[in-house]
Amino acid sequence: MVWDVLNVIGTIAFAISGAIIAIEVKYDIIGTYALGLITAFAGGAVRNLLIGIPITVLWQQTELFIIAIITIAIVFLFPEKVVHRLKELNLFDAIGLSSFAVQGAMYAHSVDLPIIAIMFSAAITGAGGGIIRDVLAQQKPLVFQKEVYLLWAMLAGFIIGMGWATESYQFYTLFVLILILRVMSYQFGWCLPTRTSKSLQGN
Amino acid sequence: MVWDVLNVIGTIAFAISGAIIAIEVKYDIIGTYALGLITAFAGGAVRNLLIGIPITVLWQQTELFIIAIITIAIVFLFPEKVVHRLKELNLFDAIGLSSFAVQGAMYAHSVDLPIIAIMFSAAITGAGGGIIRDVLAQQKPLVFQKEVYLLWAMLAGFIIGMGWATESYQFYTLFVLILILRVMSYQFGWCLPTRTSKSLQGN
Amino acid sequence: MVWDVLNVIGTIAFAISGAIIAIEVKYDIIGTYALGLITAFAGGAVRNLLIGIPITVLWQQTELFIIAIITIAIVFLFPEKVVHRLKELNLFDAIGLSSFAVQGAMYAHSVDLPIIAIMFSAAITGAGGGIIRDVLAQQKPLVFQKEVYLLWAMLAGFIIGMGWATESYQFYTLFVLILILRVMSYQFGWCLPTRTSKSLQGN
Repeated sequence: MVWDVLNVIGTIAFAISGAIIAIEVKYDIIGTYALGLITAFAGGAVRNLLIGIPITVLWQQTELFIIAIITIAIVFLFPEKVVHRLKELNLFDAIGLSSFAVQGAMYAHSVDLPIIAIMFSAAITGAGGGIIRDVLAQQKPLVFQKEVYLLWAMLAGFIIGMGWATESYQFYTLFVLILILRVMSYQFGWCLPTRTSKSLQGN
Repeated sequence: MVWDVLNVIGTIAFAISGAIIAIEVKYDIIGTYALGLITAFAGGAVRNLLIGIPITVLWQQTELFIIAIITIAIVFLFPEKVVHRLKELNLFDAIGLSSFAVQGAMYAHSVDLPIIAIMFSAAITGAGGGIIRDVLAQQKPLVFQKEVYLLWAMLAGFIIGMGWATESYQFYTLFVLILILRVMSYQFGWCLPTRTSKSLQGN
Repeated sequence: MVWDVLNVIGTIAFAISGAIIAIEVKYDIIGTYALGLITAFAGGAVRNLLIGIPITVLWQQTELFIIAIITIAIVFLFPEKVVHRLKELNLFDAIGLSSFAVQGAMYAHSVDLPIIAIMFSAAITGAGGGIIRDVLAQQKPLVFQKEVYLLWAMLAGFIIGMGWATESYQFYTLFVLILILRVMSYQFGWCLPTRTSKSLQGN
């Protein structure tokens, strides 16, 4: 159940996030649909591919496809100011990240993978869709830069992999925690160390 | 038979289209070959992956590989003006789109997939190679923007999925129809709605 | 044995190469890790996918993951001048290319694939990680342009595919040969023909 709820939340959030970026880089309505759907479904597809689950289970999620299609239609009809504001907030990307990270970790944990694979599953489920979205919108992937991002997904994987979350309310709490950490990361500009320096910037 | 003919046409057209873009972004002869081959074969490979057909059937298309390799050599020898003119026309991309869309739809229809999957198969077979081509040439994928593109591929999928085309001549007619629609789209600048607006352009 | 040694060398070299480019485009420490690991492991993963070997064998390389993780940590601690200098040299990319090309060719040869597939396996194992690295760093893939690159990988595939190298010392010699050819290619600016010309540059 928790798994399904998080799946729906993540799908809606990433469909919105993909559609907003598509609008921003001036893709048309079909491009907006393509990017919204890819952002929502590619993370799980890549995870399935790398973990060895048939990638075709993708097609058994008819309800999720319908939800995503309706969501993107609504985004397309949002007043301009709303789109602009949503973009600044980065909120939907954060919701997608946290819900999919928790869900991806639960998934890997349920098939008895080792903790490293659970952390990886959390990271790729949470961030894979966004990486492909950014590549297709010709932008540097958000997850590799600026504010703390992948680390929170891996934290979710670590907590679930250690068996510290087993009840529904714990998974939801973890989802909210990861979401808050991610939102605080970009609101307060929390950054991980980078090695960039003046002499390299010219390249 | 129709399937094979469309496959040959699409392979030649996309090999040309990939090679032309590679030349345009100054890739060398090996880069031109790589991009031509990827454009010609990646759409079908991704479709196989997502539909659950072994991706290795790729290697059973020796004739198509030879055809593509010869095609790219010819493009490399084209007089400069011809390359320049071909690029403006976008014609080979359009031929690849329509032939592969019809072929991908026929393929999915022959294995009894539902209509949504047939439309998807038409879209990914027709557009997947071009998307990967554009990403590797560091350009915004053509299919997401400007003139109507993916919609025509999905239209082919819809018509075949509904069972409205079953005879050889109907498939060829559909191929020509999609091609004309795509060419008219960019010649006359037919656009789908976009949501871009002044206040977003600064981002 | 040779296979394992080349695998370790290639993994270290590509982990360094991915990490250096990530630092250069200002990704943070997690982004640096992600890009280093992807560069080191994606080439083999894509090869496995396209050749039909389960992609999940990826997870049986625990030692290589640990080696890559330690390597990237060291890169992150390199003095700035060293990073800058290493980047100019392109040396680690070259080591990764040659070791993985020889290893990929040996791999394909050991499962009795035809020579074309062996050359392809050498090329994708040697260059796949670097292509994905460049796409994720928003750069035009190095392998498609400028100095001779993919050709050397294919040469390794050809020599192994012809059965001209069978002893350990021959494989190591081939590795050194390919490395020298690649390094000389960019030191002396050896280029394959390109078709770019003035009239196209405006596009």
